[in-house]
Formats: sequence, C-alpha cells, structure tokens
Amino acid sequence: MLIVMHHWATDKDVTLVKKTITSMGLKPVAIPGAERTAIGIIGNQGRVNDAPLRDIKAILEIIPVTKPYKLVSRDFHPADTVVTLGNKVKVGGKSPFLVIAGPCAVESRDQMMKTARLLKKMGVPVLRGGAYKPRTSPHSFQGLREGGLELLDEVRKETGLLVVTEVVSPEHVGIVAEHVDILQVGARNMQNFDLLTEVGKIRKPVILKRGLSGTLEEWLGSAEYILLGGNPNVVLCERGIRTFETATRNTADLAIIPLVKEKTHLPIIFDPSHATGKRNLVAPLSLASIVVGAHGVMIEVHPEPERALSDGQQSLHFPEFEKLQGRLNSLGKFVKQKMQGQGTRA
Amino acid sequence: MLIVMHHWATDKDVTLVKKTITSMGLKPVAIPGAERTAIGIIGNQGRVNDAPLRDIKAILEIIPVTKPYKLVSRDFHPADTVVTLGNKVKVGGKSPFLVIAGPCAVESRDQMMKTARLLKKMGVPVLRGGAYKPRTSPHSFQGLREGGLELLDEVRKETGLLVVTEVVSPEHVGIVAEHVDILQVGARNMQNFDLLTEVGKIRKPVILKRGLSGTLEEWLGSAEYILLGGNPNVVLCERGIRTFETATRNTADLAIIPLVKEKTHLPIIFDPSHATGKRNLVAPLSLASIVVGAHGVMIEVHPEPERALSDGQQSLHFPEFEKLQGRLNSLGKFVKQKMQGQGTRA
Amino acid sequence: MLIVMHHWATDKDVTLVKKTITSMGLKPVAIPGAERTAIGIIGNQGRVNDAPLRDIKAILEIIPVTKPYKLVSRDFHPADTVVTLGNKVKVGGKSPFLVIAGPCAVESRDQMMKTARLLKKMGVPVLRGGAYKPRTSPHSFQGLREGGLELLDEVRKETGLLVVTEVVSPEHVGIVAEHVDILQVGARNMQNFDLLTEVGKIRKPVILKRGLSGTLEEWLGSAEYILLGGNPNVVLCERGIRTFETATRNTADLAIIPLVKEKTHLPIIFDPSHATGKRNLVAPLSLASIVVGAHGVMIEVHPEPERALSDGQQSLHFPEFEKLQGRLNSLGKFVKQKMQGQGTRA
Amino acid sequence: MLIVMHHWATDKDVTLVKKTITSMGLKPVAIPGAERTAIGIIGNQGRVNDAPLRDIKAILEIIPVTKPYKLVSRDFHPADTVVTLGNKVKVGGKSPFLVIAGPCAVESRDQMMKTARLLKKMGVPVLRGGAYKPRTSPHSFQGLREGGLELLDEVRKETGLLVVTEVVSPEHVGIVAEHVDILQVGARNMQNFDLLTEVGKIRKPVILKRGLSGTLEEWLGSAEYILLGGNPNVVLCERGIRTFETATRNTADLAIIPLVKEKTHLPIIFDPSHATGKRNLVAPLSLASIVVGAHGVMIEVHPEPERALSDGQQSLHFPEFEKLQGRLNSLGKFVKQKMQGQGTRA
Repeated sequence: MLIVMHHWATDKDVTLVKKTITSMGLKPVAIPGAERTAIGIIGNQGRVNDAPLRDIKAILEIIPVTKPYKLVSRDFHPADTVVTLGNKVKVGGKSPFLVIAGPCAVESRDQMMKTARLLKKMGVPVLRGGAYKPRTSPHSFQGLREGGLELLDEVRKETGLLVVTEVVSPEHVGIVAEHVDILQVGARNMQNFDLLTEVGKIRKPVILKRGLSGTLEEWLGSAEYILLGGNPNVVLCERGIRTFETATRNTADLAIIPLVKEKTHLPIIFDPSHATGKRNLVAPLSLASIVVGAHGVMIEVHPEPERALSDGQQSLHFPEFEKLQGRLNSLGKFVKQKMQGQGTRA
Repeated sequence: MLIVMHHWATDKDVTLVKKTITSMGLKPVAIPGAERTAIGIIGNQGRVNDAPLRDIKAILEIIPVTKPYKLVSRDFHPADTVVTLGNKVKVGGKSPFLVIAGPCAVESRDQMMKTARLLKKMGVPVLRGGAYKPRTSPHSFQGLREGGLELLDEVRKETGLLVVTEVVSPEHVGIVAEHVDILQVGARNMQNFDLLTEVGKIRKPVILKRGLSGTLEEWLGSAEYILLGGNPNVVLCERGIRTFETATRNTADLAIIPLVKEKTHLPIIFDPSHATGKRNLVAPLSLASIVVGAHGVMIEVHPEPERALSDGQQSLHFPEFEKLQGRLNSLGKFVKQKMQGQGTRA
Repeated sequence: MLIVMHHWATDKDVTLVKKTITSMGLKPVAIPGAERTAIGIIGNQGRVNDAPLRDIKAILEIIPVTKPYKLVSRDFHPADTVVTLGNKVKVGGKSPFLVIAGPCAVESRDQMMKTARLLKKMGVPVLRGGAYKPRTSPHSFQGLREGGLELLDEVRKETGLLVVTEVVSPEHVGIVAEHVDILQVGARNMQNFDLLTEVGKIRKPVILKRGLSGTLEEWLGSAEYILLGGNPNVVLCERGIRTFETATRNTADLAIIPLVKEKTHLPIIFDPSHATGKRNLVAPLSLASIVVGAHGVMIEVHPEPERALSDGQQSLHFPEFEKLQGRLNSLGKFVKQKMQGQGTRA
Repeated sequence: MLIVMHHWATDKDVTLVKKTITSMGLKPVAIPGAERTAIGIIGNQGRVNDAPLRDIKAILEIIPVTKPYKLVSRDFHPADTVVTLGNKVKVGGKSPFLVIAGPCAVESRDQMMKTARLLKKMGVPVLRGGAYKPRTSPHSFQGLREGGLELLDEVRKETGLLVVTEVVSPEHVGIVAEHVDILQVGARNMQNFDLLTEVGKIRKPVILKRGLSGTLEEWLGSAEYILLGGNPNVVLCERGIRTFETATRNTADLAIIPLVKEKTHLPIIFDPSHATGKRNLVAPLSLASIVVGAHGVMIEVHPEPERALSDGQQSLHFPEFEKLQGRLNSLGKFVKQKMQGQGTRA
C-alpha cells in the first residue's frame, strides 16, 4: 500500500501518518520524492484495512499496490506523455517520429563533427555518442569519459544539435546533465536502482533502455523509480533481449512496443543497432518500428564503421543512413496519413 | 561430403561410387531422393581427398558440406524461389503479399463456411484450419481429425478457396495431401525428421514453421530435408520463439525475416497470432512483417473468438480482420511503389 | 472434463454417454486407450454441470481437468511407480540407482560389442545406442537404422544386457519394440504426439526425454499421452534445456528433478552427456544427480570418442567411465545409508 | 593489448610508454589499478607490432588480449586462490566447505540476533542479511539501509560472526566496508562497472553474483574489473539464470561450477535459494553443489519465513536449516575422504 501526501503536507502530518501506521501493527517506510511525500506500508499479510487512515486530511490518496508500477501506468495517467527534449524537440503522443543517430562511442572531435554536420544537413535533431562505455572486459576501450563529455558539449554548441549520452554511475549524473541534453540509462543498468533514483532527481529527459533479460514488468518498475523520484521525462527504449538465438546479437522484441503503449503513457523508441547487431538489418527493423507504433529510433552511424572502436559491424555508413532517413520520412508520413492517426491496432 | 549423381546414373554407377568410397576407408550412405541419387560420406576425420572419385562420369557434383544446409542456401540457388499454391496463387520473390486466414481449429461446417465466405468476399485466397491439433494435454480438444479434413475439402470445393492444414504424422501425409492444397509442418514438429522426409516425397507446397527453440541453422536444416527429398515447394513461417518474456505468448523475431532472405531463396511468411498470443498485437505485427520483407502472413480469424475451442484470445473478429486487410493492402502497395522494389535493406 | 468408463463398459454404454453429452449442448470426443475408454467433453465455457451423467453406471469417474496431466500426477497416484526393464531391472522408488551407458550412435558390431563387454564386466545392466539418429542436417550421419537395430539385438542376445534405443517415427514403434527392451523418445520428439500415442499402445518401457524448450507442464502432459494410451511404463529423462548460455551445450536443470518427483510418481533419470556437451562435466553432474534424487543416469561412452560419428566430445573413454562408476556406487550407497532413505529434501 | 608496468615504474616511465604508443599511431589508455599501472592500447586493427615497446625496462609484461579476462584466468594463475574472510575463515582451494546463511533482508534486531545465535550454536561462520535491497518496484520494501548496516555491525560485534551484505552503489562502498566483513555485488549489478571498479579499490572480500543473463565470459570479465582494480579477494557465486522455465524462480546452472573452476582460480559458491525460489529445493541443490565442486553455499534462513518482508517462500525454517547443515557436513566429509581430494572430475 502506498500513501501519497498532499504537496502542502507538513512534517507533522507525515509523522501522524507514520504513527497511525505503527499503531496498526505495521511498518511505515518513507519513499523519497522531490515533489511529493509518499509513505509505503510494509509488514502486512495481504490486504490492509485502511480505515484508521481515511480521515487524515493531509493524505491525497491511498493506493493499494499490486503491480510493481503505478505512476507510469496508463490507468493512473491515461493521456500520452509527450517529453520535450532541449526545449524544442518533442517525443511521444502525436509528435513526429524522432530520429537519434551517431556513433556508439565518442572517439574524436573529427568523428563527432563529421557526424554532427551530416545530421544537421539532414534535419536529424539528436546526436548520440557514448562517453562512458560499459564494456564486458576492463581491457576494452572504456570511452573518453570526461573528455568525451567535453567533446559532446562542444559539438552541441557548435551545431545546435541536441545530444544524448549514457550515464553509468550515480555520481556522474550531475556532470553528465551539465554537458548534454538527454541522459541514457543503458541496458546493463536497467535495474541499477541507485542510478535510477539519481536520474529521478534531475529534470532532463532520460532514455531508459530495456535490460538484456528485463521483463515488461521489471522495465516499467524501473521507470517508476525515476517518476517517483520526481522526473516525469522518461523515454523507454527497446533494444532487443537475450535469447537462445545467436544469428542476431539480440532478439528485437517489436511486439513489446504496442504492448508497452497499452500499459504506460510514456514514449517508447527503438534501437535497431543493438537489437540486431547487423548493419543489414538496421533499415528493415527501423522501418518496422514505425509501423508497430514506436515514437522514434536511435541508430548507430559512423563516418568509418570499419575503424570504429566499438560496434562497427552494426553501424551504418553515412550514405546508408541518408537513404534510410528518406524512407523513414516517407513511411512515417504514409502511416500518419493513411492509417489515420488511429494507430495500427486491430 | 555429398556426392550428387546425374539423373541418368544407373544402379551400377551408384555401386561403383559406393565401392570407391569403401576402398578409401570411408563409409558411403545413400541419401533418399525422388529425383536424384545422392551419396553421403561418413567416417572421415576432417577433409576428404576426393581424387579417386573425380573421374566417375555419373557423378554430377562433389559437395564439401560445412553448413547443415546446401539446397536451400542462396549461394547454391541465388534467385528467389516462387512457390505456386494450387496452380494459381504465388508466394515468394516479387509476388503480391499473401494473406492466409482462418480459425486455429476446424470446429464445424458452419464455422468454416462463414469464415470462407468472408475470405472469398475479401479476395483472401487461402483458408487455414487445423484438423489435427497438437495439444500439450491429451485431455484438450485434439481436432476433428479426418472429419476436419473432409470439412476442409468440402469448403474448398464449394468456395474455390485454397486450403492449408497441419500434418502431424508421417502416415497422414497421404490423406492430408488428398484433401488440401498446402500442408503445414508445425513448430513442435520442425525437427520431426520422418515427417519432413515424408512431405519431401510429395509435390504439394509445405509451410514449415520455425520451432519454439529453433535456431536459424536448424530451421534451414529442416527445410533441407524436404528439398533433398525432392519437394522444392517449401514456404518458411516465423511464428515467434520461446524466451523468458511471458507478457507475450512467444517473442516475435521479425529480424529473422530479412536474415532468412539473405541465407535462403525460399519464401518466408509470418504468423502474428502465435507469435504474440494477443489479439491486439496481431495488426501492428502483421503490418511490420510487410516492412521487413515477409512474403505473407497467416492470421487466426474466427466468427466467434470467445467461443473458439482453441486460441480464442489471439483470433481476430471478422471486422478486425477486414480492417487489417485494408491496411495490409494499402501498406503493401506503398512499400512496393515507394520503396521501389529494392527491398527495405540499407 | 474427462469421463472414464469402467473396463466392462460396452459400446452401448459409450454411445449413451456421448448422446447425453450432446444433449447437454456439448461435444463428446473419444480418447483412445487400450485398457479403458475415456470420453472428453469439449465446447464448454468454464465448468460443466455434470448432473445428467452422474447416474450412468458404466462411468467409473468424472474428472474435471485443469492441469494438462492427471494420470501422471502424484495427487492421482501417490506411491512411486517402479518400472521394470526387461523382467529384471527396476527403476524408480527405492530401486538401486540405474546406470545406462553406451555410444551416441550404433556404428559397428565391433564398437557395440566392445562397449557391451565393458558394461557386462562392470555390472552395468543397460546398453544405449542410437540406430535412428535425428540430425539437424540431412547431410549428417543418420544412423544405421534397421541395420543398427539388428546389431543391437545381436549384442543383446550375446551379452544378456538390456538395450535401449531411440524411436523417431510412429511407424517404427513396432519394429523397434521387437529388437530392444526399452524405447526412447528423444528431446526433439517430446511433443510428437502421434509418436507418444503409438508408444502408449505397447507395454515396453519408454524413456521420455524433456524437450529443448519443454516446460515441466508440457513434459508431464507428454507423459500423460503415453499413460492415457495404456502404457504405464514411462521413465522421464532430464537432458538439459536450451538457454542463452553457450559455454555448455545445454543447461542442465537439476532442480527440476526433485520438483518432478513432487508432481509425479514416475521415475526420473538424468542424461549428463547431452545436458553439458563436455566430457569433463559428465562425472560431476552425474554424481550431483544422485544427490538431487534422480533414479538413474544415461551416459555416453565410446571405445574411441575421437572417432565417434556423433557427439564424440561428450563421450567418456572407457577408463573414465569405470572410474565414474565406482564413484556413483560409492556415493549412491552413502546417500542411501546416511541420508536415511528420507530423500534429500529439507 | 595490455602493457603492465613494474611496480617501481615512475610517472616518467609511464609517459614514455604512452608517447611510444602514440608514435605507433595508436592510442594509449591508462587502466586504473591500486598496485600496478597498466596501459591499454586501442585503435588497432588486429594484432599490434609491439617491437618499439620491447626495450622499455619499466614494462613488466606485454599481454595480447583476446579473452575478456586475464588476471582471473587459470592460465595466468594456475593455483587455486584461497580468500580469507575476516582474518579467520577461508574459502577456495582445499578449504572446508563454507556455509553462509541468514535472511534475505535485515528487518529487525530481534530477527538478526535470533538467526545469529542459531548460526553461532551450529558453527556456521558467516551471517548474511540485506541492508540495501534492490527491488523491481520502488513501492516494495527497500531495506533498512544505513539502519540495517548498524544492526549488522552490532550483531557482528555481539556474536563474533562474520557478516556479508550487498552493496548497490559505488558511493556506499566505503560505509558498507566499515560495517561488514564481506561485500556482495548482486546479480542485477554484475555489469555495474563503476561499482566493480569501486570494490576493486578496497581489500575486503567481494562475493560477485552471476547476472540473470550473464554468460560465463561476461561474469569473468566482471571479476577482472575487481582484480584489475587491485582487489584479489573475489568469490564468485552462481545463483541461477533466467530461462523460459517458470516452474522454478531461476534455473540453477550447476554445470557452470566445474567449468568456472577450469577457467579461473577464484573460489565459487552457490546460492540455492535464489537459484530455485522454492524452500523444498534448497536442500537437494545445496548438497548437489558440494558434489560438483562448489566451495560453499549461501542460504536464506529466517526465524519466521511466513512473515519475511521478502523471499519468504524460499527461506528455510530453523529446523530445516539445522537438518541440512548436518547433511552438508556429512556429505562434505564423504566427498573429501572417499573422492580423495581429486575433485569429482572424470
């Protein structure tokens, strides 16, 4: 059970609630939140009789919790959430299909500027690039780290593009948020709850990738951490799950996209590069994601994929990306007009 | 290693080849085939020196086998295979997107005729319906079996629709092939090699579904059994794989579709009903399959899904199916025209 | 719902039951069985009111079916089933730990006789060897087939060992049952329901392997087919499941063994060779299977694993097998004495 | 490629190495380590010609890296590592089988003291208990956090037991290390590389759990982060992997234990509670882990599992645990004596 206090509730009100819970033989647990105070109840066997709480005025709502998420659920918030990126680009709801592109890792100024200029020319609004790279082996390239953040900031200022990068540690949230417009929580950190709590404290948009073995429930539970922390600007990102099939790097779970849209009001985008791990499959899967209702894609593009320090085999060459972008525009327009904004559901 | 004989090779030629192999210290194994004779070599450690065989005229080809499939591979047969269904409908290559629809199980004449009339009216050329139902429990409805085949035959004659049904046992192949136009080998039988061998002996088209945990290599290996048996009319069908995620019945692996098209010349269709297990997801996934390059879809439709004896929750109602069909047509046309027949690859 | 008739029920009785079901607006479906007649009811929405059936004397039992299995469940049959192999060896319950060993495939008389003599000397009662080999590729060695059966029969007669071999097709059940003592249904055929029905018609023991992606419920549902057919002599065999981990060939699911013993009265054995795919892991996993309560193991042993036509890398050399057998005996005795026959449960 | 400097190398030596690498057209990357300096080389295509580096005296070793791990591999360090816990208890190599036990979460002083007294009485040396609980939902009990650490410390001082608890955030490493003897990195954090780096800076032992979808290579890669950071006291812990099977909470991968021991010199223990999620399966799987060569187990035990705030259904009652402990001792002794310390390998 979850007790949400009015925003005007005082410490005294909170204390009263806690005492009442204790007197019921249960244990109150404060749930941290920047904008509201919530109090969880633990120690109950089955349903709690909430009678003693019902008369406390400072309580906004008493929520019986059965699912691992509440704030992110469509029951709780039926309208689509539209997240604004950098005061100008919107994602979610009826906003235009969003394209984010760039290399896996920030490697050099030249590499990033070349990519940024291409995006700028094409009208692609968001550049991606990893400064901190989570790698299986400590002997692999770990990213340029702070140096990478500075490069991203430079490119951002020079081109006016928005920039997204991954944050891998709670203590980096501040510095990353200073240098870029959008933060990404990677698949390996989907259940790094301290990191989720930390990005819940800022207001910059957060792209939350699905974990390699993350169930739908767990993923939405992770988003709940960020919203409960006070940051409503969460964009989900499907990036393939780990299965027995090794012909592709991961298994792209496109069916989860319309299902996510049933369960939650949050925007959802798709990463075809990690989902497939193969350059040839990026275009067809990106296009398919429009049709299943994704709000955008995040694609790996590199000026010289053959020389990339990571993920070269799944990065598009510039001409491939330009061709794909033309098709995404064309298909996006078609879906919007001919499928009449009713979505693609049966 | 595989030795393929000329079609004019005599028994004497075959005996000569076998003796030669034996004299090389190896073991010859005849591989059954209706149109050709092939002889496998076993017992070798690594590569075989084929010198003693090279002068035998009746040998068409000596093939070193490293992959589990050869006849189905695009290396061996670069052009797309187009399979003709019932002398009139084509699937594969540049043929129009094929729609197959109908209930999971044949339940009654009324149910089948209602569905058939709808398909007829809509111009959908192929009706599906299971006469033999593979079920986890012997206490579940097993299908009307021979009675179901007769109903299918009746509907076929009355409406002129083509009909597809699943065959679950080698000994049923004959009777099933008499009553329907297309045979289906189900997911649970993807590696029922005796069944594969048996459908390799007929010439009617066979839809070969991917197994619940079938890898790309295993699936193509299974298709190879059918082709090697002499039946080139194989249509692959992706129907979702089994993963840790239980929010959908299976995980639709759409990325495998363009990958299959890289590896093999055979047509591939998609079954969104089993892939997702949820009615609401059938439409978006069907549409997405066009975009990734599928040659068709097989969809469960039922006059009264709520009363279906199996898979009701994933079957479309008639109006839902009609609406989807309109969208499939419209999207199919768009993809063909605007994506210029170049496929959707990067 | 399942209606089981008394063994003395006549055709007239069965007809009466069917008519009664029809008059209830439902559909009767006969379920084949050698020793009993059972009639399933289909077409119901939820629970059936069975009042009209209760007075029919020829009905032994009316069973509401919710799980996919009934006859195999421990609720239905609380005591352990002990299966007798070839009138002399017992498996299940408190019977001694059973060891089955032999090569993956029957390759030659010499190979089989060498192995059989070793087993004989060691007191291992059952020899395994595949005559029909299900292989991913039709270009791989398919087994000596009927020739293999004859070899097995010969070895059996010469040594007095019991012999088990895999049957892959319903039509081979008869011939296989003539030549060997125990039939095996392989992992790829766990849901080959026609094959299950066919082995349900004989009385020789059947080892039913778990499928690569077979859930506990599906596996027991498959065993139910055999028991319902009239053959109670089923021995389950865990052989590893397919997961994302490729460091081993499959993932040995040892925890399923005590869980299977909770759910069913049937014996369960373990195949460490396929479960791991690595010779070095066969001994520790075999020993562990004793401790979790398996009733036996089936191990691949080959006189020359390096020259085996299949699965050489997971086959033990003779000395390795002899050493392991000593340990199995010693550990088995210890577990029986010191863990006081109370099993190993908490 | 990895360049490891002598411990006496100066900053000047390191600078020389970096310059040399740059002059080779490559990029040097410093790899943090408390005891040694290592420099990675990136930007190479394939193998690097290391000629220019070979004469630099301050270089201890030049290591071509192909696997994701090096320091943890048995090639690099053939002898078993024995980790000392709290100056008195040893795990790994030929040390006695280690038992760690306690509740999932620290809930109260009473709960912890009851459990601790039981362990003390039984001679079980290490108490577990979670202060920070990673939970799918932010609405679930998150642990007593700092309060939990203080309780653990109190119990530790009062009983002399060693204590292990999970650390979930890099910034907590310091405080956790102050209060307990052993830190645990949980399954969800197996690839939280910042956390790994942080626990690499301390010298207290770290139990590193395998991730839900962690491959053997990834797991050892994660251990490599800790060793490379300078902390050699890593104990691996298998706790089940996520698969399609839902009859158990996870799938216990016991075969990985002897395989891990082939690949690495680090100790490995087993967590039967999370691996199975069912109380009844804890005893058989714990016993089996001895037989496959685990160096210990970590078991959930609770004074009142029915009232536990988390994981009650997998926690043993005190009498169950006492009975199991007797069996573990008895079986452990047997394995050591009768299987002659040769391990259990074939």
